[in-house]
Amino acid sequence: MAESLYANELVDAVRLALVSGVGPRHRQDLLVQFGSAAAVLAASSAELQSVSGIGPKIAARIAAAHQEIDAEAELALAAEHGIDVLTDSDESYPRTLRQIHDPPGVLFRKGTPAAEDELAIAIVGTRHATRYGIAQAERLAAGLAHVGFTIVSGLARGIDAAAHRGALEAGGRTIAVLGSGLLNIYPPEHDGLARDIAANGCLMSEVAPRMVPLSGAFPQRNRIISGLAVGAIVVEAASRSGALITARHAYEQGREVFAVPGPVDSRLSRGCHALIQDGAKLVETIDDVLAELGPLAENITHEDGRIVAQPAELLLNEIEQQVLQAIDCVPVSMDTVAAGCRLPIHRVLSTVSVLEMRHLVRRVSGTQVVRATSGPAKPR
Amino acid sequence: MAESLYANELVDAVRLALVSGVGPRHRQDLLVQFGSAAAVLAASSAELQSVSGIGPKIAARIAAAHQEIDAEAELALAAEHGIDVLTDSDESYPRTLRQIHDPPGVLFRKGTPAAEDELAIAIVGTRHATRYGIAQAERLAAGLAHVGFTIVSGLARGIDAAAHRGALEAGGRTIAVLGSGLLNIYPPEHDGLARDIAANGCLMSEVAPRMVPLSGAFPQRNRIISGLAVGAIVVEAASRSGALITARHAYEQGREVFAVPGPVDSRLSRGCHALIQDGAKLVETIDDVLAELGPLAENITHEDGRIVAQPAELLLNEIEQQVLQAIDCVPVSMDTVAAGCRLPIHRVLSTVSVLEMRHLVRRVSGTQVVRATSGPAKPR
Repeated sequence: MAESLYANELVDAVRLALVSGVGPRHRQDLLVQFGSAAAVLAASSAELQSVSGIGPKIAARIAAAHQEIDAEAELALAAEHGIDVLTDSDESYPRTLRQIHDPPGVLFRKGTPAAEDELAIAIVGTRHATRYGIAQAERLAAGLAHVGFTIVSGLARGIDAAAHRGALEAGGRTIAVLGSGLLNIYPPEHDGLARDIAANGCLMSEVAPRMVPLSGAFPQRNRIISGLAVGAIVVEAASRSGALITARHAYEQGREVFAVPGPVDSRLSRGCHALIQDGAKLVETIDDVLAELGPLAENITHEDGRIVAQPAELLLNEIEQQVLQAIDCVPVSMDTVAAGCRLPIHRVLSTVSVLEMRHLVRRVSGTQVVRATSGPAKPR
Repeated sequence: MAESLYANELVDAVRLALVSGVGPRHRQDLLVQFGSAAAVLAASSAELQSVSGIGPKIAARIAAAHQEIDAEAELALAAEHGIDVLTDSDESYPRTLRQIHDPPGVLFRKGTPAAEDELAIAIVGTRHATRYGIAQAERLAAGLAHVGFTIVSGLARGIDAAAHRGALEAGGRTIAVLGSGLLNIYPPEHDGLARDIAANGCLMSEVAPRMVPLSGAFPQRNRIISGLAVGAIVVEAASRSGALITARHAYEQGREVFAVPGPVDSRLSRGCHALIQDGAKLVETIDDVLAELGPLAENITHEDGRIVAQPAELLLNEIEQQVLQAIDCVPVSMDTVAAGCRLPIHRVLSTVSVLEMRHLVRRVSGTQVVRATSGPAKPR
């Protein structure tokens, strides 16, 4: 075998990811047991079978992977098509995905990632969307993209495509997570949409570029959609829609779940209504989304230089932003804030009231104010 | 003055109710202070003004009521038109209304009350309803009337009228609470509907029969609509709809509040969505209503002889009802239940599982079962 052009670690990670039958949970269990992809691939069939869920068939495939899977060729193919191949130790691997319990071991990505993609929201729903659902997905995606969210969805027909389009039409960023390989766009009529997404965001997949769409890959793919986002909005979904799987992943990953209501005589709103009955937040407008999202785990620096600690900040006007930036996690006096912003004190006081209503700051006394560190008070 | 045909207590209560400017809250405060309507009417202006909110103008009107208000004539007029006049000490005064903090002192009623009217649900909404809202009000009213609920509403155009019609078309009972007097049906085109309601339920009002509709009377009337019911369903309501006042009364009276979602681009669903965001239960079908209603404060005996302790019982089939009737508030063994129902034990066990799922019974051990005494577990 010729000397590889690629780091061994990457080659092994890709090789392991290409073994058929090894899903994210198996891979995670194998990595915990053996420590690295290289060690997994070097293990004997008997050693491999000591991991729960790994039978003789999968063990044999893993043991044969060095002979049978040409990971270098896959990497070369990816490079040829401008596809980045990331392992979770890669610096540009999405930080949000690292937090989930079964992150993709290898991520194939086409397009240019941006720091603000960490402030992402998923918008998903049925492939058989009504005009009503399409209109709502486009409207919410456009509105959220406009204030600075990256819109994540699955490139499927119906709601997904409407969400991507809404973001693009608003001049925003969007990420499509595919269940198939990045060289096998599915459905085929979304080829053009996929190109637009790659130019204004990213296409992502955890399966190798030439993989064909397997129906089993889609539910699994949904955990990446919700994992990339701070919350997931379900726009239209029948009672057994795949979008409800995304919502379940979102709950399990600690993301907020939102649902758009619709006519009770529409079969495609039933899934959304069931989510709301189970505690999902009802969404009419993007304000309903921003109001629910508490402080982010880590601050996000937007391309325009704004530092965002909590999504509700995205709705602030210039003066409100200015006053907020002058208030820190340590209590500070209103006079200091006024001096820092060069604003009259009465203006600072009224602006602090607005920020307080949006749960962004908290008065600790009549004259002292501090950044709020917990989410908005729940309505009940 | 000639000897009255009516009990003094009734005459005085009606006279006090007819004093213009004395609303339910004032009347309640006056009765607490003076003990009876007769004592209120006999009090001096100075004494009356010692009650908070009673100024010289209202005090003068009360003091003059004996001379100026011909309560006997009102009672004769009511009798002539088949209108019953009830005070809250009357036995047929609705028990549910006695529980609210500002019950009507006098209730004018046309129609025949029934014991099962205590199992009532209010269905209210905007006068400017869409076809969607009308259809939902009719469907829910018909479904709930069919299983045994009396439907309460306000005889207004739009949702109210649809709710009354739905109940009537299902062969059920319905109560209309008017803001005007019972001889001043408003809107006039609902004259025929009002006659149908009186024949299959009741018309009610707390104002004298000839009173014209005063806009201020309608919000006040809403507390009677929710007070008569175990819960209130808002079907369509704009952001400032009067139906939201009914919902607020329902909350304050400890009634369940339900709301029907709709398209987010319909102005007339905004009030409903706001209610759901504030904790109202989202309603798609009557099952959503029955599942939420816990045990009733007191058992209700239906005209067909059924004793209902909890609305969810209304959805039971014959065998489920039979098994439930054999289970008491004291734990009983499955064998005893089987013997009591003359059913095979496996049938009893499977039926108990159904009743358990509907939160009507609770297993206290593998072999003992008891009536559930608290409402359904909340979804979160």
